[in-house]
Amino acid sequence: VSTDTWLDLPEDTHFGLHNLPYGVFDRPDVPSEPPRAGIAIGEHLLDLAPVAEALGRPEFSATLAHRSLNPLLALGRPRWTELRELITDWLTDRADRHLVEPHLIPREQIRLHLPFAPADYVDFYASEHHATTLGSLLRPGGAALLPNWKHLPVGYHGRAGTVVASGTPIVRPSGQRRPDPEQPPVFGPTTRLDLEAEVGFVVGGGPTVLGSSVPVADFREHVFGALLVNDWSARDIQGWEGQPLGPHLGKSFATSVGSWVVPLDALDAARVPPPPRDVPLLPYLRDDAEPWGLDIALEVRLNGHRISEPPFAEMYWTAPQQLAHMTVNGASLRPGDLFASGTVSGPGPYQRGSLIELTMGGQNPLKLPDGTERRFLEDGDEVRIGGSAPGPEGSRIGFGEVTGRVMLTGSD
Amino acid sequence: VSTDTWLDLPEDTHFGLHNLPYGVFDRPDVPSEPPRAGIAIGEHLLDLAPVAEALGRPEFSATLAHRSLNPLLALGRPRWTELRELITDWLTDRADRHLVEPHLIPREQIRLHLPFAPADYVDFYASEHHATTLGSLLRPGGAALLPNWKHLPVGYHGRAGTVVASGTPIVRPSGQRRPDPEQPPVFGPTTRLDLEAEVGFVVGGGPTVLGSSVPVADFREHVFGALLVNDWSARDIQGWEGQPLGPHLGKSFATSVGSWVVPLDALDAARVPPPPRDVPLLPYLRDDAEPWGLDIALEVRLNGHRISEPPFAEMYWTAPQQLAHMTVNGASLRPGDLFASGTVSGPGPYQRGSLIELTMGGQNPLKLPDGTERRFLEDGDEVRIGGSAPGPEGSRIGFGEVTGRVMLTGSD
Repeated sequence: VSTDTWLDLPEDTHFGLHNLPYGVFDRPDVPSEPPRAGIAIGEHLLDLAPVAEALGRPEFSATLAHRSLNPLLALGRPRWTELRELITDWLTDRADRHLVEPHLIPREQIRLHLPFAPADYVDFYASEHHATTLGSLLRPGGAALLPNWKHLPVGYHGRAGTVVASGTPIVRPSGQRRPDPEQPPVFGPTTRLDLEAEVGFVVGGGPTVLGSSVPVADFREHVFGALLVNDWSARDIQGWEGQPLGPHLGKSFATSVGSWVVPLDALDAARVPPPPRDVPLLPYLRDDAEPWGLDIALEVRLNGHRISEPPFAEMYWTAPQQLAHMTVNGASLRPGDLFASGTVSGPGPYQRGSLIELTMGGQNPLKLPDGTERRFLEDGDEVRIGGSAPGPEGSRIGFGEVTGRVMLTGSD
Repeated sequence: VSTDTWLDLPEDTHFGLHNLPYGVFDRPDVPSEPPRAGIAIGEHLLDLAPVAEALGRPEFSATLAHRSLNPLLALGRPRWTELRELITDWLTDRADRHLVEPHLIPREQIRLHLPFAPADYVDFYASEHHATTLGSLLRPGGAALLPNWKHLPVGYHGRAGTVVASGTPIVRPSGQRRPDPEQPPVFGPTTRLDLEAEVGFVVGGGPTVLGSSVPVADFREHVFGALLVNDWSARDIQGWEGQPLGPHLGKSFATSVGSWVVPLDALDAARVPPPPRDVPLLPYLRDDAEPWGLDIALEVRLNGHRISEPPFAEMYWTAPQQLAHMTVNGASLRPGDLFASGTVSGPGPYQRGSLIELTMGGQNPLKLPDGTERRFLEDGDEVRIGGSAPGPEGSRIGFGEVTGRVMLTGSD
């Protein structure tokens, strides 16, 4: 990849030529133009469809003029690679600069939308540290990790229709909870609203055939890229409802995703070996030839205060293993399917990706620099999760942020 | 509703003027015509779009010309009622008979498709008999029903992308199972493949707003109709994977749905009081003013032999309660959302809607009239689930059938 761009990029930008993450945007100052695809570059966004049109690639222009990335996701790996090379050419070839430059928009002038329409959404539980801490909190005296945990990536289906764009206000959910196990349940707004810092993966390529599966080695053919996820959770609702069929209302009220989908191609320099596995894996989960640990550094901010730096490199199960597992029963994939890692937590106390872990179930409140304390989220609280990973040549690949503010009702 | 049709309907038809269920069809003998909406009437299907066009309702013609019912679902209750009245007029008004009759197609000439594109799919667990039997099988010595079961309709999200049309071959899923709890898990085709006879409900109307909820009393405004569901299940995969986050691969390989969506309006005569509730319900689940028990009689056939007649009227939780619960946390709805009842089982041994119940976990094999025995489904087995309900004036409202045959691989 050439880095010889005619653009004046900030030296430490997370949005250099090695990144080129996709998003969907519009311009509030130009309401006649509908939302469409763009990529982040430096402090700008490149409006892709008119550039593709101007530079003789109308087929890409049509794909990128949509209000979601799904048509791009459907194209598949060879066309994704072709487009990435094209965009790099557009940003480095001085001969065409006059055709490209008019379509660079300062990012403070744009509004970002949900980047794609999620088809199915599966959430995993892939951090050993998270699963161990939660297990010890939820099953005191029992085994922290259940017997299946190291044999398969445990996961479940979430609600695709409530995956929302970064910045969408989060209405505190109401529901049943049972604070006193000797009494009947009560109804009301959750008192244990939590965040979960996660990384999600976006499926693309043609739909797969029902009855077929995707081996670990085919990961690249079926996954377009990665983005940040905050899987908001109501711990009291989840705790009461969750047996025997798992989470439902405690999770389904909202899942926020980041505005930028980072292409897999941008993450090659971030690949690291996953942690050693303690038990032998069944063949379909073996990933020695395709190690896809990813050294993504997350950071979680609550009302502006950094409260955690969860290391994605610590995840026990990797995305190719999750995809192989999800499809080993013959379940088919569609472009737009989203699967997320589950809460990212490292071994250290400052590496936990949820408040229930950071406060040990609310027992040890978090003291914020502004003098306040938090067990769980309060109305008005704003959560910002950021992430970045190493890129080639000492660069960093930014994921941007996924943000959300808690409101008591829709009209707050 | 007038029953004075110019059509020559069989006297005992389940597809009379009181039913008018919607499906999506094409004609294998006319390959140039794409799939589109129709209704079943007697032994025929009425091709709706050209009739709407011929009779001056082009807006309905456009809605009904699609290969899924989703545009119709999006219209909402007032237009659904209007269209139902129109279709009744078309089939009773002799003056227009010459414009309608050419679009009646004998049903043996048509091919039926998945009637709508499911958005999110939630499966409940609403039969007390089913939950009690499964609880006693899966937690021997423990409480058959968990403490939450009578306080809320337990449910979870399934995979919308593997909801398939009736008749789709079902490839036996492979996965992890642990037959010997002292040994590591093994991988291979499920040895405990099961059916689950269910009734599903199809959501329509405009999308609801994130953060709002749908009270029990608003059920009719948000639900278009009902259809048969077979939620295929791999009990061994489900048993090993299912803690703590619930079913995933044991269910996600396929869910078959019936070809006909019966409008809610056709089910008024089938409404019955639900079973008495043993514990007081929280206000948002109270349904005294809107009792939506439904006297739908299911029947399950295995290779042509009737093995069970599950009574839907026995379900503890009703569809309006399920919808109110699903949305009480502010989760939004989209047209095409599907929620299903969970396995329908009555109190009697011949009323159980799954093989795991009919054979008590495989302990008591089912003896079929052809001399064979079944613990779970074998390759080549064909499952047919049918259903009907009382209609007005002594009529019966048919749901048709949901069918599927088990295959070892996609190439069987």
